[in-house]
Amino acid sequence: MEAGETMSIGDSGKVDLEFVNVTHSIIDAINPVLHTPEGAVVYGLDKRMDHTPVIGDPIDMERFREIGREGEGVLCYIEDCTNANKKGRTPSEKVAREHLRDVLYSIEDYDGGIVATTFSSHIARVKSLVEFADDIGRQPVLLGRSMEKYSGTAERLDFVDFPSDLGMFGHRKSVDRTFKRIMNEGKENYLPIVTGHQGEPRAMLTRMARGETPYELDDGDKVVFSARVIPEPTNEGQRYQAEKLLGMQGARVYDDIHVSGHLNQEGHYEMLDALQPQHIIPAHQDMSGYSSYVNLCESEGYKMGRDLHVTRNGNLIQLVD
Amino acid sequence: MEAGETMSIGDSGKVDLEFVNVTHSIIDAINPVLHTPEGAVVYGLDKRMDHTPVIGDPIDMERFREIGREGEGVLCYIEDCTNANKKGRTPSEKVAREHLRDVLYSIEDYDGGIVATTFSSHIARVKSLVEFADDIGRQPVLLGRSMEKYSGTAERLDFVDFPSDLGMFGHRKSVDRTFKRIMNEGKENYLPIVTGHQGEPRAMLTRMARGETPYELDDGDKVVFSARVIPEPTNEGQRYQAEKLLGMQGARVYDDIHVSGHLNQEGHYEMLDALQPQHIIPAHQDMSGYSSYVNLCESEGYKMGRDLHVTRNGNLIQLVD
Amino acid sequence: MEAGETMSIGDSGKVDLEFVNVTHSIIDAINPVLHTPEGAVVYGLDKRMDHTPVIGDPIDMERFREIGREGEGVLCYIEDCTNANKKGRTPSEKVAREHLRDVLYSIEDYDGGIVATTFSSHIARVKSLVEFADDIGRQPVLLGRSMEKYSGTAERLDFVDFPSDLGMFGHRKSVDRTFKRIMNEGKENYLPIVTGHQGEPRAMLTRMARGETPYELDDGDKVVFSARVIPEPTNEGQRYQAEKLLGMQGARVYDDIHVSGHLNQEGHYEMLDALQPQHIIPAHQDMSGYSSYVNLCESEGYKMGRDLHVTRNGNLIQLVD
Amino acid sequence: MEAGETMSIGDSGKVDLEFVNVTHSIIDAINPVLHTPEGAVVYGLDKRMDHTPVIGDPIDMERFREIGREGEGVLCYIEDCTNANKKGRTPSEKVAREHLRDVLYSIEDYDGGIVATTFSSHIARVKSLVEFADDIGRQPVLLGRSMEKYSGTAERLDFVDFPSDLGMFGHRKSVDRTFKRIMNEGKENYLPIVTGHQGEPRAMLTRMARGETPYELDDGDKVVFSARVIPEPTNEGQRYQAEKLLGMQGARVYDDIHVSGHLNQEGHYEMLDALQPQHIIPAHQDMSGYSSYVNLCESEGYKMGRDLHVTRNGNLIQLVD
Repeated sequence: MEAGETMSIGDSGKVDLEFVNVTHSIIDAINPVLHTPEGAVVYGLDKRMDHTPVIGDPIDMERFREIGREGEGVLCYIEDCTNANKKGRTPSEKVAREHLRDVLYSIEDYDGGIVATTFSSHIARVKSLVEFADDIGRQPVLLGRSMEKYSGTAERLDFVDFPSDLGMFGHRKSVDRTFKRIMNEGKENYLPIVTGHQGEPRAMLTRMARGETPYELDDGDKVVFSARVIPEPTNEGQRYQAEKLLGMQGARVYDDIHVSGHLNQEGHYEMLDALQPQHIIPAHQDMSGYSSYVNLCESEGYKMGRDLHVTRNGNLIQLVD
Repeated sequence: MEAGETMSIGDSGKVDLEFVNVTHSIIDAINPVLHTPEGAVVYGLDKRMDHTPVIGDPIDMERFREIGREGEGVLCYIEDCTNANKKGRTPSEKVAREHLRDVLYSIEDYDGGIVATTFSSHIARVKSLVEFADDIGRQPVLLGRSMEKYSGTAERLDFVDFPSDLGMFGHRKSVDRTFKRIMNEGKENYLPIVTGHQGEPRAMLTRMARGETPYELDDGDKVVFSARVIPEPTNEGQRYQAEKLLGMQGARVYDDIHVSGHLNQEGHYEMLDALQPQHIIPAHQDMSGYSSYVNLCESEGYKMGRDLHVTRNGNLIQLVD
Repeated sequence: MEAGETMSIGDSGKVDLEFVNVTHSIIDAINPVLHTPEGAVVYGLDKRMDHTPVIGDPIDMERFREIGREGEGVLCYIEDCTNANKKGRTPSEKVAREHLRDVLYSIEDYDGGIVATTFSSHIARVKSLVEFADDIGRQPVLLGRSMEKYSGTAERLDFVDFPSDLGMFGHRKSVDRTFKRIMNEGKENYLPIVTGHQGEPRAMLTRMARGETPYELDDGDKVVFSARVIPEPTNEGQRYQAEKLLGMQGARVYDDIHVSGHLNQEGHYEMLDALQPQHIIPAHQDMSGYSSYVNLCESEGYKMGRDLHVTRNGNLIQLVD
Repeated sequence: MEAGETMSIGDSGKVDLEFVNVTHSIIDAINPVLHTPEGAVVYGLDKRMDHTPVIGDPIDMERFREIGREGEGVLCYIEDCTNANKKGRTPSEKVAREHLRDVLYSIEDYDGGIVATTFSSHIARVKSLVEFADDIGRQPVLLGRSMEKYSGTAERLDFVDFPSDLGMFGHRKSVDRTFKRIMNEGKENYLPIVTGHQGEPRAMLTRMARGETPYELDDGDKVVFSARVIPEPTNEGQRYQAEKLLGMQGARVYDDIHVSGHLNQEGHYEMLDALQPQHIIPAHQDMSGYSSYVNLCESEGYKMGRDLHVTRNGNLIQLVD
């Protein structure tokens, strides 16, 4: 079942499931909508409101607005609140792409090693890295198990069109062989795109930082983090360690070249405006993560306990008699 | 009606109101308890769990534990969540007092001006300041409208026993006259205790910082803030301004000599342990302020929507049929 | 004297002054270089390393590299350290432009008021706002004294090519007349670009937020801050107040659509690499602001007290005998 | 050589070394002073200005003031700047002791496990823990290699007078045997004082948190951190992990019961006032750590490059001709 399609659920013939196209850090993201006789139930999974994604179609706001107006309207909207405490609007992937282009073009003349890392599942970002590598005269190569897995799958399923000679290597032996070839032919000719953007101890970049791979980092080599540190102390500690190790080898770090895949406050405001739901259930966060979303809903006239339901997984809420 | 007392409410003769003694930044604080046939309703107003308050009795945990065990137990506990996101235990006022003593004794030999500021309503703190002023050979004097009002009232109602010659002045004329006397007789003989701990533009300390009073600050003079900055940007901006002005006159700042009047997480844990309420309603905060309290309640087996009710002022919750 | 030009200084004929083109938040920025018999003295005024500025030429890195290699090389480099504690690379103005485009295009369908604010002196940003206003079918108009002054001057000096009918109004009467016209003809047809991005109490946006202008903000109206809050408590307090007032009128805020005008660490690294100075003097900051820059210089082999001079305005440093 | 003593250095008979008593987180701390014909050189090692330390004598400010006035005065003052960026005054160890007492007394009635952790080298704090354990009816026992080493040594050298039956165990076997005994005789009778306040992966508390010792943590058990998290991401990550593990076992955490061992700004101000040094050299920090100290010195009339020398280890500074 694809974005835009609808199928009947159950035997009654009265309930339909529809997938509406949305935009997120992964390709082919959808939000499911259950059409019932009492109205639509919209399950707001992870998404960004992106009108210029690098891969795939823009978010289908037109369809959300229709769902808000047609039939009984929206009975209930369950919404992912990951970024609901952040002000403003999450920028389009296009903005991250321009930021990334700016960084890579600015080091075009550097004649040593450049290494990039990002989320393996973020195919649009990987694609941008692959393109800009070519633009600055370097051969891109994807290294690390999950890097090979995600990009390989995306290519096989035709979600992305990589250069036919793009190397992807996951097994340690083939990765190390690739690194040896890079060292032999000159680091200045390659852009390894590797796993390890959060400083995970076993990921490729961290292994490079510890000197455990044949790739040797030299003074002035560039490491481009097209990712943001996930704000959790364990994670921040690991990433800090990885950057420290990179710094001890002389590497220069370009970090934070990223946009989030989740709606900020103004995206949530626009979703409410489009759907006009009768009931709202914030989801995917703890109480603290819901706070701004609850404020937003209340400023739009909803009321806790009446049509705004702050609850927990496992609870049952009856919306109609 | 005083802490420890109970009175009947309504005509049925079935509902009693009791005041349980608690400890807070003000004197004579209580938490009201409504005894109903279905159980007690405990309204957890602002409090700290203080076993060694400087003025008044310790919090009556024994009574709270009794209320939790007697009759139908506690039907509902409505709790102030101001500090519920803070770890650990709020220290006793005795700890703030020792901290304050340490600061003032450490500048005992200074032969210039020393000025202190704190919450006017915080009579225990004012009392400590008055005592320590005497200890280091300085005459304390209370200055500022609310300083005069609160301390004057506390003394008249016999909540506190100040030295009989303690000066308290609120009207600008008498304040300025006092400042002139201090300047004439030597700043080294006085400890003015003034309003303005949050940098409020019209408060006494801010006026002193702007040079608008006859009291002249000199290089090395000490300003003791027995208060914490209330964390809100407008407020932080004002306090920052006031400190900058003080610094431009050469004053040295001792800040943050304070303990909160509200329960931290471990105080909340102990209250739940004492009361064992059937239902809990967090209060006095927004959603974000409730988050740790909700986590705490859930770790103690409560469940949102069942016996843990996150709601808003104006909502009605029916607990028994 | 323009970027790229050189003139002789003094009578000896031995000292020349050159202006090298750089990129910054203002147009026509240069860094002065003094060519002396002992080598060049480069005064690194405010700049970003921008290869795709929206107005004017890219930073002239080629010339900096030449200066580093020619003659005696660079005797001394005095560098602005404003952002030296920030990691990575300051993005190009082009990235801010794409971010701004993304925000304004995303609210293209909104049929109420949209207001934007930015630095009056940031002509490139004002130009982007003016263009995108047109793209989304709104007439831009510049309001506020400094907005009129800077943009008017830039246009008269031919630094920027605004639409011939672009309105610019500074005097309160003409501003209010413009607001009245906007209210009459429909807010949905205009994009006022106003002063007040830091919440300055007397600036245009703050006056609008307080309801002191004829422009009425309605529920859902958008306010776009193409600026970042300058991190100083007084300032943060004012901006917070302004946003609160805007929120009370129902306005939705899009903030932080900006890139800095100052070099981050990797820009400083590249400048050192280009200039290879014999001596370095960090400038324009306090000790704390210099710390990362000193670390950077030390990692490049400089040594404090020998060829890296941390000093204060008014101090004299003799570099050659 | 002890605090207060002086010995001659070198053959000239002109240079004497004196040890001045100071107060710090360790016992028996001194600051060395070199008396030369050109004046005294005071080496300001780690210290707090403590007039009421729990063990040992108060800081000898009287002697510092004498050194500032006698003979040629102080030629040079080299000062530890660890906390120089912090406002106000570092509280006395007595304040930490009262805070700790407040916490332990508040859980006196708890009939399950209570565990405490602090710096092994902080004998005064360990002594307070040992005393308060006894006060609340629990037998203290010191566990962990460094805990045994430091406290054992302090006791043998008569720096502290522990109860004769105080158990101290460092080897894993004897620690585990002790834990088994505690489990058999009842956790409510003991207060284990253990290593691991920073969440170090191999320290005792972390092992307890991972369930690797015979001591079983139960719901509601208390863990008292008489220490502050050292602010470095690796460290913060480890501590966070340790607290999370403790929380998963139901333990309640009381943290941050501590005062620093280093001078804050007002302590530095008083030291300058006492010593009146001709030259000042900030030490033990990077540039960022010096910034407030440099501001302080400048506000007292010193000037960078003249009598205030910001430098690095290994540099030589000639103060007299």
